[in-house]
Amino acid sequence: MISFAMDNFADRLVAAIGRKNSRVVVGLDPRLESLPAEFRRGAENDIEAAGRALLDFNAKLIEIVAPHAVAVKPQVAFYEKLGPLGLVIYFATLKHARDHGLLVIGDVKRGDVPETAKAYAEAHAVAFPSDALTVNPFFGSDGIDPFVQVAAKMGTGIFVLVKTSNPKSGEIQDLPVEGRPLYLHLAERVAAWGAPLMGACGYSSMGAVVGATHPAQAAEIRKALPQAFFLVPGYGAQGGSSADLKPCFNADGLGAVVNSSRGIIFAWEKGPCKGMPWEKAVEKAVVDMKADINQALGI
Amino acid sequence: MISFAMDNFADRLVAAIGRKNSRVVVGLDPRLESLPAEFRRGAENDIEAAGRALLDFNAKLIEIVAPHAVAVKPQVAFYEKLGPLGLVIYFATLKHARDHGLLVIGDVKRGDVPETAKAYAEAHAVAFPSDALTVNPFFGSDGIDPFVQVAAKMGTGIFVLVKTSNPKSGEIQDLPVEGRPLYLHLAERVAAWGAPLMGACGYSSMGAVVGATHPAQAAEIRKALPQAFFLVPGYGAQGGSSADLKPCFNADGLGAVVNSSRGIIFAWEKGPCKGMPWEKAVEKAVVDMKADINQALGI
Repeated sequence: MISFAMDNFADRLVAAIGRKNSRVVVGLDPRLESLPAEFRRGAENDIEAAGRALLDFNAKLIEIVAPHAVAVKPQVAFYEKLGPLGLVIYFATLKHARDHGLLVIGDVKRGDVPETAKAYAEAHAVAFPSDALTVNPFFGSDGIDPFVQVAAKMGTGIFVLVKTSNPKSGEIQDLPVEGRPLYLHLAERVAAWGAPLMGACGYSSMGAVVGATHPAQAAEIRKALPQAFFLVPGYGAQGGSSADLKPCFNADGLGAVVNSSRGIIFAWEKGPCKGMPWEKAVEKAVVDMKADINQALGI
Repeated sequence: MISFAMDNFADRLVAAIGRKNSRVVVGLDPRLESLPAEFRRGAENDIEAAGRALLDFNAKLIEIVAPHAVAVKPQVAFYEKLGPLGLVIYFATLKHARDHGLLVIGDVKRGDVPETAKAYAEAHAVAFPSDALTVNPFFGSDGIDPFVQVAAKMGTGIFVLVKTSNPKSGEIQDLPVEGRPLYLHLAERVAAWGAPLMGACGYSSMGAVVGATHPAQAAEIRKALPQAFFLVPGYGAQGGSSADLKPCFNADGLGAVVNSSRGIIFAWEKGPCKGMPWEKAVEKAVVDMKADINQALGI
Protein backbone atom coordinates (compact mmCIF):
# COMPACT_ATOMS: atom_id res chain seq x y z
CA MET A 1 0.00 0.00 0.00
CA ILE A 2 1.24 3.50 -0.85
CA SER A 3 1.57 5.63 2.26
CA PHE A 4 -0.59 8.76 2.52
CA ALA A 5 2.41 11.08 2.50
CA MET A 6 3.62 9.68 -0.83
CA ASP A 7 0.19 10.28 -2.28
CA ASN A 8 0.74 14.02 -1.90
CA PHE A 9 1.80 15.49 -5.24
CA ALA A 10 4.53 17.73 -3.78
CA ASP A 11 6.05 14.73 -2.01
CA ARG A 12 5.94 12.69 -5.20
CA LEU A 13 7.55 15.56 -7.11
CA VAL A 14 10.34 16.00 -4.56
CA ALA A 15 11.00 12.23 -4.64
CA ALA A 16 11.22 12.27 -8.45
CA ILE A 17 13.62 15.24 -8.41
CA GLY A 18 15.86 13.43 -5.95
CA ARG A 19 15.75 10.12 -7.82
CA LYS A 20 16.59 11.63 -11.20
CA ASN A 21 18.60 14.63 -9.98
CA SER A 22 16.51 16.58 -12.47
CA ARG A 23 14.29 19.65 -12.45
CA VAL A 24 13.25 19.26 -16.09
CA VAL A 25 9.71 19.11 -17.44
CA VAL A 26 9.25 18.34 -21.13
CA GLY A 27 6.35 20.05 -22.89
CA LEU A 28 4.60 17.67 -25.29
CA ASP A 29 3.11 20.08 -27.83
CA PRO A 30 3.29 18.09 -31.06
CA ARG A 31 2.55 19.65 -34.45
CA LEU A 32 2.09 17.37 -37.41
CA GLU A 33 4.06 19.65 -39.75
CA SER A 34 7.12 19.48 -37.46
CA LEU A 35 7.33 15.71 -36.98
CA PRO A 36 10.39 13.86 -38.30
CA ALA A 37 9.84 12.67 -41.89
CA GLU A 38 9.45 9.02 -40.88
CA PHE A 39 6.32 9.94 -38.89
CA ARG A 40 4.84 12.31 -41.47
CA ARG A 41 4.95 9.73 -44.28
CA GLY A 42 1.36 8.90 -45.30
CA ALA A 43 -0.08 11.09 -42.53
CA GLU A 44 -0.61 14.29 -44.51
CA ASN A 45 -4.03 13.51 -45.94
CA ASP A 46 -5.25 10.81 -43.60
CA ILE A 47 -6.60 11.95 -40.24
CA GLU A 48 -6.29 8.53 -38.61
CA ALA A 49 -2.72 8.10 -39.83
CA ALA A 50 -1.96 11.61 -38.56
CA GLY A 51 -3.32 10.72 -35.14
CA ARG A 52 -1.29 7.53 -35.08
CA ALA A 53 1.84 9.48 -36.10
CA LEU A 54 1.43 12.03 -33.30
CA LEU A 55 0.85 9.32 -30.74
CA ASP A 56 3.84 7.29 -31.95
CA PHE A 57 6.03 10.40 -31.81
CA ASN A 58 4.84 11.24 -28.28
CA ALA A 59 5.46 7.64 -27.20
CA LYS A 60 9.05 7.73 -28.50
CA LEU A 61 9.63 11.14 -26.88
CA ILE A 62 8.37 9.82 -23.55
CA GLU A 63 10.69 6.80 -23.73
CA ILE A 64 13.69 9.01 -24.56
CA VAL A 65 13.12 11.65 -21.87
CA ALA A 66 11.80 9.40 -19.06
CA PRO A 67 15.23 8.83 -17.39
CA HIS A 68 16.11 12.54 -17.50
CA ALA A 69 12.89 14.48 -16.84
CA VAL A 70 10.65 14.45 -13.76
CA ALA A 71 7.48 15.20 -15.67
CA VAL A 72 5.93 15.83 -19.05
CA LYS A 73 3.49 18.66 -19.66
CA PRO A 74 1.20 18.13 -22.62
CA GLN A 75 -0.43 21.41 -23.69
CA VAL A 76 -4.02 20.36 -24.34
CA ALA A 77 -4.62 23.17 -26.88
CA PHE A 78 -2.51 21.35 -29.47
CA TYR A 79 -4.67 18.25 -29.00
CA GLU A 80 -8.00 20.14 -29.01
CA LYS A 81 -6.92 21.61 -32.32
CA LEU A 82 -7.28 18.12 -33.80
CA GLY A 83 -10.87 17.68 -32.62
CA PRO A 84 -12.19 14.61 -30.76
CA LEU A 85 -9.37 12.42 -32.12
CA GLY A 86 -6.88 14.83 -30.56
CA LEU A 87 -8.35 14.16 -27.14
CA VAL A 88 -7.92 10.42 -27.68
CA ILE A 89 -4.24 11.11 -28.39
CA TYR A 90 -4.07 13.35 -25.31
CA PHE A 91 -5.54 10.59 -23.13
CA ALA A 92 -3.19 7.94 -24.53
CA THR A 93 -0.19 10.25 -24.10
CA LEU A 94 -1.00 10.79 -20.41
CA LYS A 95 -1.23 7.03 -19.90
CA HIS A 96 2.02 6.26 -21.74
CA ALA A 97 3.90 8.88 -19.69
CA ARG A 98 2.59 7.55 -16.38
CA ASP A 99 3.45 4.00 -17.43
CA HIS A 100 7.03 5.20 -17.93
CA GLY A 101 7.31 6.63 -14.43
CA LEU A 102 6.86 10.26 -15.42
CA LEU A 103 4.63 12.65 -13.57
CA VAL A 104 2.09 14.27 -15.87
CA ILE A 105 1.15 17.94 -15.66
CA GLY A 106 -1.94 18.63 -17.75
CA ASP A 107 -1.39 22.15 -19.09
CA VAL A 108 -5.07 23.01 -19.35
CA LYS A 109 -5.24 26.43 -17.63
CA ARG A 110 -8.89 25.83 -16.77
CA GLY A 111 -10.85 28.17 -14.52
CA ASP A 112 -14.57 28.73 -14.06
CA VAL A 113 -17.46 29.22 -11.61
CA PRO A 114 -17.69 26.64 -8.79
CA GLU A 115 -19.96 23.97 -10.35
CA THR A 116 -18.00 24.07 -13.59
CA ALA A 117 -14.62 24.18 -11.87
CA LYS A 118 -15.64 20.96 -10.12
CA ALA A 119 -16.37 19.35 -13.49
CA TYR A 120 -12.97 20.46 -14.81
CA ALA A 121 -11.17 19.24 -11.67
CA GLU A 122 -12.79 15.82 -12.04
CA ALA A 123 -12.20 15.77 -15.79
CA HIS A 124 -8.44 16.24 -15.41
CA ALA A 125 -8.01 13.92 -12.43
CA VAL A 126 -10.23 11.03 -13.58
CA ALA A 127 -11.28 11.12 -17.26
CA PHE A 128 -7.93 12.54 -18.39
CA PRO A 129 -5.82 11.38 -15.44
CA SER A 130 -3.06 13.88 -14.67
CA ASP A 131 -0.85 14.17 -11.59
CA ALA A 132 -1.25 17.94 -11.65
CA LEU A 133 -2.85 20.62 -13.78
CA THR A 134 -2.53 24.33 -14.44
CA VAL A 135 -5.40 26.56 -13.25
CA ASN A 136 -6.40 30.18 -13.94
CA PRO A 137 -7.13 32.23 -10.76
CA PHE A 138 -9.39 34.86 -12.37
CA PHE A 139 -12.56 33.59 -10.62
CA GLY A 140 -11.20 33.86 -7.04
CA SER A 141 -11.51 31.40 -4.12
CA ASP A 142 -14.76 29.74 -5.09
CA GLY A 143 -13.31 28.91 -8.50
CA ILE A 144 -10.19 27.41 -6.86
CA ASP A 145 -11.84 25.45 -4.01
CA PRO A 146 -13.16 22.60 -6.22
CA PHE A 147 -9.65 22.01 -7.58
CA VAL A 148 -8.27 21.94 -4.01
CA GLN A 149 -10.94 19.45 -2.92
CA VAL A 150 -10.16 17.07 -5.75
CA ALA A 151 -6.40 17.48 -5.17
CA ALA A 152 -6.79 16.69 -1.45
CA LYS A 153 -8.82 13.59 -2.24
CA MET A 154 -6.74 12.27 -5.14
CA GLY A 155 -3.23 13.36 -4.15
CA THR A 156 -2.92 15.53 -7.24
CA GLY A 157 -1.37 18.96 -7.67
CA ILE A 158 -2.36 22.39 -8.99
CA PHE A 159 -0.20 25.11 -10.52
CA VAL A 160 -2.00 28.45 -10.36
CA LEU A 161 -1.10 31.10 -12.94
CA VAL A 162 0.68 33.94 -11.13
CA LYS A 163 3.04 35.53 -13.67
CA THR A 164 2.97 34.06 -17.15
CA SER A 165 5.86 34.00 -19.63
CA ASN A 166 4.33 35.99 -22.50
CA PRO A 167 5.79 39.46 -23.24
CA LYS A 168 2.56 41.35 -22.46
CA SER A 169 1.57 39.45 -19.30
CA GLY A 170 2.21 42.66 -17.37
CA GLU A 171 -0.80 44.42 -18.90
CA ILE A 172 -3.03 42.61 -16.42
CA GLN A 173 -0.72 40.76 -14.04
CA ASP A 174 1.47 43.78 -13.14
CA LEU A 175 -1.43 46.21 -12.58
CA PRO A 176 -0.84 48.11 -9.33
CA VAL A 177 -3.25 47.05 -6.59
CA GLU A 178 -2.82 49.01 -3.38
CA GLY A 179 0.75 49.83 -4.34
CA ARG A 180 1.80 46.31 -5.30
CA PRO A 181 1.48 44.40 -8.57
CA LEU A 182 -1.46 42.03 -8.98
CA TYR A 183 0.86 39.01 -9.24
CA LEU A 184 1.98 39.52 -5.63
CA HIS A 185 -1.62 39.59 -4.46
CA LEU A 186 -2.14 36.36 -6.35
CA ALA A 187 0.99 34.86 -4.78
CA GLU A 188 -0.42 35.58 -1.32
CA ARG A 189 -3.70 33.95 -2.30
CA VAL A 190 -1.83 30.89 -3.53
CA ALA A 191 -0.02 30.62 -0.18
CA ALA A 192 -3.39 30.55 1.61
CA TRP A 193 -5.21 28.36 -0.92
CA GLY A 194 -2.36 25.84 -0.89
CA ALA A 195 -2.04 25.49 2.90
CA PRO A 196 -4.37 22.44 3.12
CA LEU A 197 -2.25 20.63 0.51
CA MET A 198 1.07 20.78 2.38
CA GLY A 199 3.24 17.70 1.93
CA ALA A 200 5.62 16.03 4.36
CA CYS A 201 8.44 17.57 2.28
CA GLY A 202 7.47 21.09 3.40
CA TYR A 203 6.09 22.07 0.00
CA SER A 204 2.42 22.38 -0.91
CA SER A 205 0.81 20.52 -3.79
CA MET A 206 -0.43 23.92 -4.92
CA GLY A 207 2.31 25.62 -6.89
CA ALA A 208 2.50 28.63 -9.17
CA VAL A 209 3.21 29.22 -12.85
CA VAL A 210 6.00 31.81 -13.02
CA GLY A 211 7.68 32.58 -16.36
CA ALA A 212 11.48 32.32 -16.68
CA THR A 213 11.24 35.43 -18.85
CA HIS A 214 10.57 37.62 -15.76
CA PRO A 215 13.46 36.89 -13.30
CA ALA A 216 13.01 40.03 -11.16
CA GLN A 217 9.34 39.28 -10.60
CA ALA A 218 10.14 35.62 -9.95
CA ALA A 219 12.41 36.66 -7.08
CA GLU A 220 9.60 38.66 -5.47
CA ILE A 221 7.14 35.80 -5.90
CA ARG A 222 9.68 33.32 -4.48
CA LYS A 223 9.82 35.42 -1.32
CA ALA A 224 6.01 35.57 -1.03
CA LEU A 225 5.58 31.85 -1.69
CA PRO A 226 8.45 29.99 0.01
CA GLN A 227 6.55 26.68 0.24
CA ALA A 228 5.20 26.49 -3.31
CA PHE A 229 6.74 24.80 -6.31
CA PHE A 230 7.05 27.02 -9.38
CA LEU A 231 6.28 25.55 -12.77
CA VAL A 232 8.56 27.67 -14.95
CA PRO A 233 7.82 27.94 -18.67
CA GLY A 234 9.84 30.12 -21.00
CA TYR A 235 13.23 28.35 -20.84
CA GLY A 236 14.95 28.00 -24.21
CA ALA A 237 12.71 28.76 -27.19
CA GLN A 238 10.85 31.53 -25.32
CA GLY A 239 14.11 33.25 -24.32
CA GLY A 240 14.80 32.46 -20.64
CA SER A 241 18.35 31.30 -19.71
CA SER A 242 19.51 29.15 -16.78
CA ALA A 243 20.77 32.31 -15.00
CA ASP A 244 17.20 33.66 -15.22
CA LEU A 245 15.99 30.52 -13.48
CA LYS A 246 17.99 30.89 -10.29
CA PRO A 247 15.52 33.25 -8.53
CA CYS A 248 12.80 30.62 -9.06
CA PHE A 249 14.52 28.13 -6.75
CA ASN A 250 15.00 27.97 -3.01
CA ALA A 251 18.41 27.48 -1.39
CA ASP A 252 17.62 23.75 -1.01
CA GLY A 253 17.71 23.38 -4.81
CA LEU A 254 14.00 22.66 -4.77
CA GLY A 255 10.92 24.83 -5.26
CA ALA A 256 10.85 24.85 -9.05
CA VAL A 257 10.64 22.67 -12.12
CA VAL A 258 11.42 24.09 -15.53
CA ASN A 259 9.59 23.35 -18.76
CA SER A 260 10.93 23.28 -22.29
CA SER A 261 8.74 22.23 -25.20
CA ARG A 262 10.05 23.05 -28.68
CA GLY A 263 13.66 23.27 -27.44
CA ILE A 264 13.53 19.55 -26.66
CA ILE A 265 10.89 17.86 -28.77
CA PHE A 266 12.03 19.58 -31.98
CA ALA A 267 15.73 19.83 -30.96
CA TRP A 268 17.02 18.55 -34.32
CA GLU A 269 15.41 21.49 -36.15
CA LYS A 270 17.06 24.43 -34.39
CA GLY A 271 19.66 25.23 -31.74
CA PRO A 272 22.81 23.36 -30.65
CA CYS A 273 21.49 19.87 -31.61
CA LYS A 274 20.39 20.94 -35.10
CA GLY A 275 21.03 18.34 -37.79
CA MET A 276 21.55 15.36 -35.45
CA PRO A 277 19.34 12.25 -35.86
CA TRP A 278 16.12 13.24 -34.12
CA GLU A 279 16.25 10.77 -31.19
CA LYS A 280 19.85 11.73 -30.42
CA ALA A 281 18.99 15.43 -30.62
CA VAL A 282 16.08 15.04 -28.20
CA GLU A 283 18.16 13.01 -25.77
CA LYS A 284 21.08 15.43 -25.86
CA ALA A 285 18.75 18.41 -25.44
CA VAL A 286 17.07 17.02 -22.32
CA VAL A 287 20.37 15.82 -20.79
CA ASP A 288 22.00 19.21 -21.48
CA MET A 289 19.05 21.11 -20.03
CA LYS A 290 19.15 19.05 -16.86
CA ALA A 291 22.90 19.73 -16.48
CA ASP A 292 22.51 23.42 -17.36
CA ILE A 293 19.95 23.96 -14.60
CA ASN A 294 21.83 21.92 -12.01
CA GLN A 295 25.01 23.83 -12.82
CA ALA A 296 23.29 27.19 -12.41
CA LEU A 297 22.12 25.97 -8.98
CA GLY A 298 25.60 24.70 -8.09
CA ILE A 299 24.35 21.11 -7.74
CA MET B 1 -23.51 34.05 -51.49
CA ILE B 2 -23.53 35.38 -47.94
CA SER B 3 -22.51 39.03 -47.81
CA PHE B 4 -19.42 40.02 -45.80
CA ALA B 5 -21.42 42.07 -43.29
CA MET B 6 -23.60 39.08 -42.42
CA ASP B 7 -20.47 37.05 -41.77
CA ASN B 8 -19.71 39.26 -38.77
CA PHE B 9 -20.82 37.50 -35.58
CA ALA B 10 -22.41 40.59 -34.01
CA ASP B 11 -24.46 41.14 -37.17
CA ARG B 12 -25.56 37.53 -37.18
CA LEU B 13 -26.49 37.78 -33.50
CA VAL B 14 -28.52 40.98 -34.00
CA ALA B 15 -30.32 39.37 -36.96
CA ALA B 16 -31.20 36.29 -34.86
CA ILE B 17 -32.49 38.47 -31.99
CA GLY B 18 -34.72 40.37 -34.41
CA ARG B 19 -35.97 37.25 -36.17
CA LYS B 20 -36.89 35.40 -32.97
CA ASN B 21 -37.62 38.45 -30.77
CA SER B 22 -35.51 36.63 -28.20
CA ARG B 23 -32.43 37.38 -26.08
CA VAL B 24 -32.24 33.86 -24.65
CA VAL B 25 -29.22 31.55 -24.67
CA VAL B 26 -29.70 28.00 -23.44
CA GLY B 27 -26.77 26.43 -21.62
CA LEU B 28 -26.31 22.80 -22.62
CA ASP B 29 -24.62 21.34 -19.53
CA PRO B 30 -25.98 17.79 -19.42
CA ARG B 31 -25.40 15.49 -16.47
CA LEU B 32 -26.22 11.83 -16.86
CA GLU B 33 -27.75 11.56 -13.39
CA SER B 34 -30.26 14.34 -14.18
CA LEU B 35 -31.55 13.05 -17.53
CA PRO B 36 -35.22 12.07 -17.82
CA ALA B 37 -35.71 8.37 -16.98
CA GLU B 38 -36.31 7.39 -20.61
CA PHE B 39 -32.75 8.49 -21.46
CA ARG B 40 -31.09 6.99 -18.40
CA ARG B 41 -32.50 3.51 -19.03
CA GLY B 42 -29.60 1.14 -19.82
CA ALA B 43 -27.07 3.99 -19.74
CA GLU B 44 -25.92 3.68 -16.12
CA ASN B 45 -23.24 1.04 -16.62
CA ASP B 46 -22.53 1.36 -20.30
CA ILE B 47 -20.33 4.23 -21.39
CA GLU B 48 -21.39 4.09 -25.03
CA ALA B 49 -25.07 4.01 -24.10
CA ALA B 50 -24.44 6.92 -21.73
CA GLY B 51 -22.85 8.93 -24.52
CA ARG B 52 -25.73 8.13 -26.84
CA ALA B 53 -28.23 9.16 -24.13
CA LEU B 54 -26.55 12.54 -23.58
CA LEU B 55 -26.40 13.22 -27.28
CA ASP B 56 -30.05 12.20 -27.79
CA PHE B 57 -31.08 14.45 -24.91
CA ASN B 58 -29.09 17.39 -26.29
CA ALA B 59 -30.60 16.81 -29.74
CA LYS B 60 -34.15 16.91 -28.35
CA LEU B 61 -33.34 20.02 -26.27
CA ILE B 62 -31.99 21.76 -29.35
CA GLU B 63 -35.12 20.94 -31.36
CA ILE B 64 -37.38 22.22 -28.56
CA VAL B 65 -35.54 25.49 -27.90
CA ALA B 66 -34.53 26.36 -31.49
CA PRO B 67 -37.59 28.56 -32.24
CA HIS B 68 -37.26 30.47 -28.96
CA ALA B 69 -33.53 30.91 -28.26
CA VAL B 70 -30.92 32.74 -30.32
CA ALA B 71 -28.07 30.51 -29.25
CA VAL B 72 -27.02 27.52 -27.22
CA LYS B 73 -23.96 27.56 -24.98
CA PRO B 74 -22.52 24.14 -24.26
CA GLN B 75 -20.17 24.26 -21.25
CA VAL B 76 -17.26 22.12 -22.41
CA ALA B 77 -16.27 21.13 -18.84
CA PHE B 78 -19.26 18.80 -18.60
CA TYR B 79 -18.13 17.07 -21.79
CA GLU B 80 -14.45 16.90 -20.82
CA LYS B 81 -15.58 15.18 -17.65
CA LEU B 82 -16.60 12.21 -19.82
CA GLY B 83 -13.18 11.85 -21.45
CA PRO B 84 -12.58 11.56 -25.21
CA LEU B 85 -16.14 10.31 -25.80
CA GLY B 86 -17.44 13.50 -24.20
CA LEU B 87 -15.67 15.56 -26.84
CA VAL B 88 -17.34 13.50 -29.56
CA ILE B 89 -20.68 14.40 -27.95
CA TYR B 90 -19.59 18.04 -27.72
CA PHE B 91 -18.71 18.10 -31.41
CA ALA B 92 -21.97 16.45 -32.46
CA THR B 93 -23.96 18.82 -30.24
CA LEU B 94 -22.38 21.87 -31.90
CA LYS B 95 -23.27 20.48 -35.31
CA HIS B 96 -26.86 19.62 -34.40
CA ALA B 97 -27.44 23.11 -32.99
CA ARG B 98 -26.05 24.82 -36.08
CA ASP B 99 -28.14 22.57 -38.31
CA HIS B 100 -31.20 23.84 -36.41
CA GLY B 101 -30.38 27.51 -37.03
CA LEU B 102 -29.01 28.23 -33.60
CA LEU B 103 -25.84 30.17 -32.99
CA VAL B 104 -23.37 28.22 -30.89
CA ILE B 105 -21.30 29.80 -28.12
CA GLY B 106 -18.56 27.42 -26.98
CA ASP B 107 -18.22 28.12 -23.26
CA VAL B 108 -14.56 27.14 -23.06
CA LYS B 109 -13.02 30.10 -21.17
CA ARG B 110 -9.66 29.41 -22.79
CA GLY B 111 -6.69 31.73 -22.39
CA ASP B 112 -2.96 31.19 -22.85
CA VAL B 113 0.32 32.54 -24.25
CA PRO B 114 0.22 33.60 -27.92
CA GLU B 115 1.22 30.36 -29.71
CA THR B 116 -1.14 28.34 -27.55
CA ALA B 117 -3.96 30.87 -27.78
CA LYS B 118 -3.71 30.52 -31.56
CA ALA B 119 -4.13 26.74 -31.22
CA TYR B 120 -7.19 27.24 -29.00
CA ALA B 121 -8.69 29.83 -31.36
CA GLU B 122 -8.32 27.43 -34.28
CA ALA B 123 -9.56 24.48 -32.21
CA HIS B 124 -12.84 26.20 -31.37
CA ALA B 125 -13.45 27.73 -34.79
CA VAL B 126 -12.48 24.73 -36.95
CA ALA B 127 -12.13 21.41 -35.11
CA PHE B 128 -15.02 22.18 -32.74
CA PRO B 129 -16.83 24.75 -34.91
CA SER B 130 -18.48 27.41 -32.77
CA ASP B 131 -19.90 30.80 -33.76
CA ALA B 132 -18.34 32.37 -30.68
CA LEU B 133 -16.39 31.33 -27.62
CA THR B 134 -15.64 32.63 -24.14
CA VAL B 135 -12.06 33.74 -23.44
CA ASN B 136 -10.10 34.54 -20.26
CA PRO B 137 -8.20 37.90 -20.38
CA PHE B 138 -5.55 37.07 -17.74
CA PHE B 139 -2.70 36.94 -20.29
CA GLY B 140 -3.25 40.44 -21.73
CA SER B 141 -3.22 41.62 -25.37
CA ASP B 142 -0.89 39.02 -26.81
CA GLY B 143 -3.11 36.27 -25.41
CA ILE B 144 -6.18 37.93 -26.98
CA ASP B 145 -4.76 38.84 -30.41
CA PRO B 146 -4.82 35.28 -31.82
CA PHE B 147 -8.52 34.99 -30.97
CA VAL B 148 -9.19 38.34 -32.69
CA GLN B 149 -7.29 37.26 -35.80
CA VAL B 150 -9.27 34.04 -36.13
CA ALA B 151 -12.54 35.90 -35.43
CA ALA B 152 -11.77 38.49 -38.13
CA LYS B 153 -10.98 35.75 -40.64
CA MET B 154 -13.86 33.39 -39.82
CA GLY B 155 -16.62 35.83 -38.82
CA THR B 156 -16.76 34.37 -35.33
CA GLY B 157 -17.21 36.10 -31.98
CA ILE B 158 -15.44 36.29 -28.62
CA PHE B 159 -16.88 36.96 -25.16
CA VAL B 160 -14.12 38.09 -22.81
CA LEU B 161 -14.58 37.47 -19.08
CA VAL B 162 -15.02 40.85 -17.39
CA LYS B 163 -17.17 40.24 -14.28
CA THR B 164 -18.18 36.64 -13.66
CA SER B 165 -21.34 35.47 -11.88
CA ASN B 166 -19.80 33.54 -8.97
CA PRO B 167 -20.20 35.01 -5.45
CA LYS B 168 -16.46 35.51 -4.87
CA SER B 169 -15.56 36.93 -8.30
CA GLY B 170 -14.80 40.24 -6.57
CA GLU B 171 -11.72 38.82 -4.83
CA ILE B 172 -9.78 39.33 -8.05
CA GLN B 173 -12.09 41.17 -10.44
CA ASP B 174 -13.01 44.00 -8.03
CA LEU B 175 -9.45 44.68 -6.84
CA PRO B 176 -8.83 48.44 -6.89
CA VAL B 177 -6.43 49.45 -9.67
CA GLU B 178 -5.64 53.15 -9.68
CA GLY B 179 -8.88 53.88 -7.87
CA ARG B 180 -11.14 51.76 -10.05
CA PRO B 181 -12.03 48.07 -9.95
CA LEU B 182 -10.09 45.70 -12.20
CA TYR B 183 -13.26 44.82 -14.16
CA LEU B 184 -13.50 48.40 -15.45
CA HIS B 185 -9.90 48.26 -16.67
CA LEU B 186 -10.79 45.02 -18.42
CA ALA B 187 -13.89 46.63 -19.94
CA GLU B 188 -11.72 49.37 -21.44
CA ARG B 189 -9.36 46.77 -22.84
CA VAL B 190 -12.29 44.92 -24.39
CA ALA B 191 -13.47 48.13 -26.07
CA ALA B 192 -10.03 48.53 -27.68
CA TRP B 193 -9.46 44.84 -28.48
CA GLY B 194 -12.92 44.60 -30.08
CA ALA B 195 -12.65 47.67 -32.32
CA PRO B 196 -11.40 45.69 -35.39
CA LEU B 197 -14.42 43.37 -35.11
CA MET B 198 -17.13 46.04 -35.40
CA GLY B 199 -20.22 44.92 -37.31
CA ALA B 200 -22.54 46.88 -39.56
CA CYS B 201 -25.05 46.78 -36.67
CA GLY B 202 -22.84 49.03 -34.53
CA TYR B 203 -21.83 46.24 -32.16
CA SER B 204 -18.49 44.48 -32.06
CA SER B 205 -18.06 40.72 -32.36
CA MET B 206 -16.04 40.99 -29.17
CA GLY B 207 -18.42 41.00 -26.24
CA ALA B 208 -18.04 40.56 -22.49
CA VAL B 209 -19.17 38.02 -19.93
CA VAL B 210 -20.99 39.96 -17.20
CA GLY B 211 -22.91 38.09 -14.49
CA ALA B 212 -26.59 38.90 -13.84
CA THR B 213 -25.77 38.46 -10.16
CA HIS B 214 -23.91 41.82 -10.12
CA PRO B 215 -26.39 44.42 -11.52
CA ALA B 216 -24.59 47.53 -10.13
CA GLN B 217 -21.31 46.48 -11.70
CA ALA B 218 -23.11 45.56 -14.93
CA ALA B 219 -24.39 49.15 -15.19
CA GLU B 220 -20.84 50.51 -14.91
CA ILE B 221 -19.52 48.06 -17.47
CA ARG B 222 -22.42 48.87 -19.83
CA LYS B 223 -21.32 52.53 -19.76
CA ALA B 224 -17.68 51.63 -20.47
CA LEU B 225 -18.56 49.22 -23.25
CA PRO B 226 -21.53 50.66 -25.20
CA GLN B 227 -20.76 48.73 -28.39
CA ALA B 228 -20.20 45.28 -26.90
CA PHE B 229 -22.70 42.48 -26.43
CA PHE B 230 -22.82 41.07 -22.90
CA LEU B 231 -23.18 37.35 -22.45
CA VAL B 232 -25.02 37.24 -19.14
CA PRO B 233 -24.90 34.07 -17.05
CA GLY B 234 -26.52 33.78 -13.64
CA TYR B 235 -30.21 34.16 -14.59
CA GLY B 236 -32.52 31.72 -12.79
CA ALA B 237 -30.72 28.90 -10.98
CA GLN B 238 -27.78 31.14 -10.00
CA GLY B 239 -30.09 33.81 -8.55
CA GLY B 240 -30.34 36.71 -11.04
CA SER B 241 -33.83 38.06 -11.86
CA SER B 242 -35.08 39.85 -14.99
CA ALA B 243 -34.94 43.19 -13.10
CA ASP B 244 -31.22 42.51 -12.49
CA LEU B 245 -30.79 42.11 -16.24
CA LYS B 246 -31.96 45.55 -17.28
CA PRO B 247 -28.62 47.32 -16.71
CA CYS B 248 -27.00 44.82 -19.07
CA PHE B 249 -28.97 46.10 -22.06
CA ASN B 250 -28.81 49.27 -24.11
CA ALA B 251 -31.85 51.47 -24.76
CA ASP B 252 -32.22 49.79 -28.18
CA GLY B 253 -33.13 46.50 -26.45
CA LEU B 254 -29.86 45.06 -27.73
CA GLY B 255 -26.41 44.69 -26.22
CA ALA B 256 -26.99 41.53 -24.19
CA VAL B 257 -28.03 37.91 -24.40
CA VAL B 258 -28.91 36.00 -21.27
CA ASN B 259 -28.02 32.41 -20.48
CA SER B 260 -29.92 29.87 -18.42
CA SER B 261 -28.73 26.29 -18.13
CA ARG B 262 -30.29 24.18 -15.38
CA GLY B 263 -33.38 26.45 -15.22
CA ILE B 264 -34.29 25.33 -18.74
CA ILE B 265 -32.72 21.96 -19.48
CA PHE B 266 -33.83 20.48 -16.15
CA ALA B 267 -37.01 22.60 -15.83
CA TRP B 268 -39.21 19.63 -14.89
CA GLU B 269 -37.13 18.97 -11.75
CA LYS B 270 -37.41 22.32 -9.97
CA GLY B 271 -39.12 25.71 -10.25
CA PRO B 272 -42.45 26.72 -11.83
CA CYS B 273 -42.48 23.90 -14.44
CA LYS B 274 -41.75 21.15 -11.91
CA GLY B 275 -43.64 17.93 -12.49
CA MET B 276 -44.62 18.64 -16.12
CA PRO B 277 -43.62 16.15 -18.85
CA TRP B 278 -40.01 17.04 -19.52
CA GLU B 279 -40.38 18.35 -23.09
CA LYS B 280 -43.30 20.57 -22.09
CA ALA B 281 -41.39 21.86 -19.07
CA VAL B 282 -38.36 22.77 -21.20
CA GLU B 283 -40.51 24.49 -23.81
CA LYS B 284 -42.49 26.46 -21.24
CA ALA B 285 -39.30 27.46 -19.40
CA VAL B 286 -37.63 28.86 -22.51
CA VAL B 287 -40.80 30.63 -23.74
CA ASP B 288 -41.38 32.13 -20.27
CA MET B 289 -37.76 33.27 -19.99
CA LYS B 290 -37.94 34.98 -23.37
CA ALA B 291 -41.15 36.79 -22.34
CA ASP B 292 -39.79 37.65 -18.88
CA ILE B 293 -36.74 39.38 -20.36
CA ASN B 294 -38.68 41.16 -23.09
CA GLN B 295 -41.21 42.41 -20.54
CA ALA B 296 -38.45 43.75 -18.27
CA LEU B 297 -37.15 45.65 -21.31
CA GLY B 298 -40.63 46.92 -22.23
CA ILE B 299 -40.53 45.12 -25.60
